[in-house]
Amino acid sequence: MITSTSNDRVKAIRALKRRKERDARGLAYVEGIRAVLTAIESDADIALLVIAPDLLTSATARAALQRANTEGIELLEVSRQVFDSLSNRDGPQGLAAVICQRWRPLDSVTLEDGDRWLALTAVQDPGNLGTILRTADASGATGVILLESGADPWDPTAIRASTGAVFTQHLVRADWASFTAWASASGATVVGATDDAKTTYRGADYGSRTVVLLGSEREGLTEAQRDFCNALVAIPMRGSVDSLNLGVAASLVAYEVMHQREASPTPPPTETTPPTEATR
Amino acid sequence: MITSTSNDRVKAIRALKRRKERDARGLAYVEGIRAVLTAIESDADIALLVIAPDLLTSATARAALQRANTEGIELLEVSRQVFDSLSNRDGPQGLAAVICQRWRPLDSVTLEDGDRWLALTAVQDPGNLGTILRTADASGATGVILLESGADPWDPTAIRASTGAVFTQHLVRADWASFTAWASASGATVVGATDDAKTTYRGADYGSRTVVLLGSEREGLTEAQRDFCNALVAIPMRGSVDSLNLGVAASLVAYEVMHQREASPTPPPTETTPPTEATR
Repeated sequence: MITSTSNDRVKAIRALKRRKERDARGLAYVEGIRAVLTAIESDADIALLVIAPDLLTSATARAALQRANTEGIELLEVSRQVFDSLSNRDGPQGLAAVICQRWRPLDSVTLEDGDRWLALTAVQDPGNLGTILRTADASGATGVILLESGADPWDPTAIRASTGAVFTQHLVRADWASFTAWASASGATVVGATDDAKTTYRGADYGSRTVVLLGSEREGLTEAQRDFCNALVAIPMRGSVDSLNLGVAASLVAYEVMHQREASPTPPPTETTPPTEATR
Repeated sequence: MITSTSNDRVKAIRALKRRKERDARGLAYVEGIRAVLTAIESDADIALLVIAPDLLTSATARAALQRANTEGIELLEVSRQVFDSLSNRDGPQGLAAVICQRWRPLDSVTLEDGDRWLALTAVQDPGNLGTILRTADASGATGVILLESGADPWDPTAIRASTGAVFTQHLVRADWASFTAWASASGATVVGATDDAKTTYRGADYGSRTVVLLGSEREGLTEAQRDFCNALVAIPMRGSVDSLNLGVAASLVAYEVMHQREASPTPPPTETTPPTEATR
């Protein structure tokens, strides 16, 4: 058991609190019994389990350990003090994992009818990003495309807020030019959320291969981003605040897409018939 | 100008970081130019403006000050260092206010047709609470009822997440027994959100005087709380996560109520006509 907080392996793990280090090594630190269990169940690529036997008392935790043993995952036993020094949260539960970040290359993503994705431009807050991953999963989306960098989904706050969805949603990062080329080639309907759109999010046509595009918390979508969208939708606001939380806005639109899909599971090909005297 | 961080008035303001102190004195500390402006515009009861002239450079800030002067609000000038010692955020903007908390007694609330409220039982996270206030405002709700204590809407994190809605929404706190007595007497339709309800939030009847009831992040609604509800609704989830963020769940239901109201602004009295051969 490692009892020194200045042990080299401990220091290397602790360094994962910094994004630069996570980016360079392609790793992340996942804490908590439920989060580690979800990672295992989602076939996350686990480099190492970190356990503090003193803290690890629940049956769930022991089951997680047993499972990790079966799968031949390396265990690092540390003292309570060392575990605390690695932890980003109050009341550490004694179980954590170092996992390999999983990213899917954009050019490996092909869209099928019925698929839906979220795309976020430069999202700033890791808590918002985690919440959006959680809702994307719940609303049946396939994944989230992170455009123009922004918050790190492997940030401890994002991982925690995602409640496991960071392991189940496909994660893609891309610059704007690659995204637009991909979206055009994939037959995606890109629907941007923006305050001043004339169509509300409830009245829009999301197509059969949907990418919902959301701007950053402060800036929203740029002119060029709006121009690229096939449709723009607004979420009506009836009070005095001038915007919604980004996670809330993403969730309202993601759920609307889900409900529209479920109301008409096999959308007809998008042909428009010119109005006749009879239908006008 | 006060330059000592141990000045008595400065210490008394700094103490408002603690909930106990806020509760005892009925005060809160509001930071940031926009937040203070919203407080002034919402006729918040401002006890004191705190300014750090060194930090306060923007035209908006000067306009806020001018307005405060016109309304005869007391100014406390402090050094940059003192302001930093009061601040709960990075990059303090040099303008803050001590305001009197505003609570509305439950027995002063009468429901009219068309009114909608949110009620939260023991919400734990001040960020979630602030987000819910923000969405409540945007969705046209009148206010938020906080049941069985829980997070403080006057917590700096809640104030910030509310983006001003803490000043515009009516805030009520009550215990469960007072709430049920009030709801019954007011003709409220209390609709509880819970995972295992058979009706989805899109298919429910929210009545004409709606109170949407949400449980705490961890516990959800208790058996007794569910029993009291006129209807229970679930938000469908299609992925692997087993719940939504509380702010997201509240927002989906609050917006659904808004959309239903706007689709039929004057709901007819709830009479059900038995189906005839012709309509069956």
